[in-house]
Amino acid sequence: MHISELETPALVVDLDIMERNLSRVAEYARAHHLRLRPHTKTHKIPALGKRQLALGAVGLTVAKTTEAEVMLDAAPADLLVAYPVLGPQKLERLRQVAKRTQVTVALDSLDAARALSSAGVDVRVLVEVDLGLGRTGVAPADVAALVQEVVGLPHLDWDGLMFYPGHIKGMSGEDEARVAKLRRDLHDVLLTLTALRLVPRVVSGGSTPLLFHSHTIEGMNEIRPGTYVFNDLNTASMGACGFQDCAATIITTVVSRREGHMIIDGGSKTFSSDRLATGGAGFGQIVGLPGALFHKMNEEHGYVDIRECTNAPAVGERVQVLPNHICVAVNLHERIYGVRQGTVEETWTVAGRGKLQ
Amino acid sequence: MHISELETPALVVDLDIMERNLSRVAEYARAHHLRLRPHTKTHKIPALGKRQLALGAVGLTVAKTTEAEVMLDAAPADLLVAYPVLGPQKLERLRQVAKRTQVTVALDSLDAARALSSAGVDVRVLVEVDLGLGRTGVAPADVAALVQEVVGLPHLDWDGLMFYPGHIKGMSGEDEARVAKLRRDLHDVLLTLTALRLVPRVVSGGSTPLLFHSHTIEGMNEIRPGTYVFNDLNTASMGACGFQDCAATIITTVVSRREGHMIIDGGSKTFSSDRLATGGAGFGQIVGLPGALFHKMNEEHGYVDIRECTNAPAVGERVQVLPNHICVAVNLHERIYGVRQGTVEETWTVAGRGKLQ
Repeated sequence: MHISELETPALVVDLDIMERNLSRVAEYARAHHLRLRPHTKTHKIPALGKRQLALGAVGLTVAKTTEAEVMLDAAPADLLVAYPVLGPQKLERLRQVAKRTQVTVALDSLDAARALSSAGVDVRVLVEVDLGLGRTGVAPADVAALVQEVVGLPHLDWDGLMFYPGHIKGMSGEDEARVAKLRRDLHDVLLTLTALRLVPRVVSGGSTPLLFHSHTIEGMNEIRPGTYVFNDLNTASMGACGFQDCAATIITTVVSRREGHMIIDGGSKTFSSDRLATGGAGFGQIVGLPGALFHKMNEEHGYVDIRECTNAPAVGERVQVLPNHICVAVNLHERIYGVRQGTVEETWTVAGRGKLQ
Repeated sequence: MHISELETPALVVDLDIMERNLSRVAEYARAHHLRLRPHTKTHKIPALGKRQLALGAVGLTVAKTTEAEVMLDAAPADLLVAYPVLGPQKLERLRQVAKRTQVTVALDSLDAARALSSAGVDVRVLVEVDLGLGRTGVAPADVAALVQEVVGLPHLDWDGLMFYPGHIKGMSGEDEARVAKLRRDLHDVLLTLTALRLVPRVVSGGSTPLLFHSHTIEGMNEIRPGTYVFNDLNTASMGACGFQDCAATIITTVVSRREGHMIIDGGSKTFSSDRLATGGAGFGQIVGLPGALFHKMNEEHGYVDIRECTNAPAVGERVQVLPNHICVAVNLHERIYGVRQGTVEETWTVAGRGKLQ
């Protein structure tokens, strides 16, 4: 099938770009002796998890236990649930998943550790440390105490540390100071642990914006990037990739036109309403239509200001949009399409879509 | 099952409130001789469409042809696709749907009308007029010309007008002027059409915020509210319902705590990242926890500031959140639950979830 035959809105992935993205990161990780455990929340597709594993990933990362169930189909040697697992149903899911592969769980509280241990599920544990984001993770000063508790709990096999540097969006200005602080905090934590003879096997960090600087974070030996498989306007705007590295776009149809304005058949149920992380007014970039501003959306309508455009498309014509944030966009689509030079080569069901538990 | 046994995050609907919402609007429509054709994009569940029909709705409204396919299961006497239908696949879907029930399509361009007519699908047509929102819809002055074209096209049965007053969020201040203009514009359009002996059978307007003022819009004889089935923080903030009329909440678990702050297990993939339409900083209101501010989210994490709270919950405890915008939140959930006095009575699959085409 040719790409022009896809019904809109359709999320399409340029396979050449995606494959280049996957290879580049796999090679980078190999060159710098970094374990690569990609976060699959971006694509939520086992077939893509399989490709990441084939390129050398040591395992896969998921956010939720239901995502773990889905990602078993990629046959990973290890599944990291990078999220505190609480509640009896989730612990039961984890037990079932752990029968089929090695499971690692990240946690940041003694409550979560005790619940996991009491449930009797044999898992590896990464203690999450907050290195500046202020989300989950214990303070650096509290890491050693929690590790000591985890080490003493039955069924838990303490494997190391995890952190997520989501507060760092690039490598300039304010971010530079944040990275410096992250380095110091991580160094201190590792010193303290070493003094206690608690040597982490895994120190897992990484995010897409910081990706290619990972080798400069001393002590970190694993990265868990997610977005790099497709990239998006956020990643490009942060300077973490080029626009030529953005593999995923959404094809829409112009459904209504008026002077200086057009409506496309995608809104917050197609793109999500995520704003650009670096600021800015738009909900995505219209490819090949300089001056167009995707400035507003409703659920199924995108509002595009075309006053600055020459040759704006007519009703029924198509426009391709580079979304702000691909992870939340993919999660809205039943299927996405892999395209090479205009031909649809792959149709993937987003199997992990809506897996929230 | 008791509500406390649901795995989080879980979207729950209080059945008593939902049934009261459904009945109130059905009675209002009946009392004022307004046709009620509810927009099902809010719930996307055929069983709920059935309830709306049982309470007297004349048909159901959908946004997309794939939603129309799903909503056939509610066995509506009429399905309104309130969206321009363009492209061969969508026209083919429409043809199949039209074999099973009466289909009405809204459109705002001669292009869309000609495509529909050429496809040879026998449908009723509402011409969409823009009464201030600036989205789809022709300008009031251009309505008559488009109606005359539609009347002359084979297979199309012109049935009237449609508009969506989404620019009106309440009935005070600026909104009052907008409503006054809407009344004048609609009046003028109807005068012009009548002079041409083009008398619309249906004049379909309505939205949840304007709902109970519908009888004051002269010439409008149909309403298509969607959100009223559940209501949400938007609807309550606009004054279009009370907080006691909000039927749907999302139950989450506290997964991490620190001084003055907690993280819940729902973010933009659970709630959507829609801001409050009336402005305001939060992503939802934490029920029963005054002073809590749900101020930030990532995909699977909600950040709640609890510095102003007494008795904030501990890790593992649950909090219930009233979402900003229920239509986009429901669309993220595989299943939602109907609850009465703490007992889960219904489990509904969101069959129209992700139906974007």
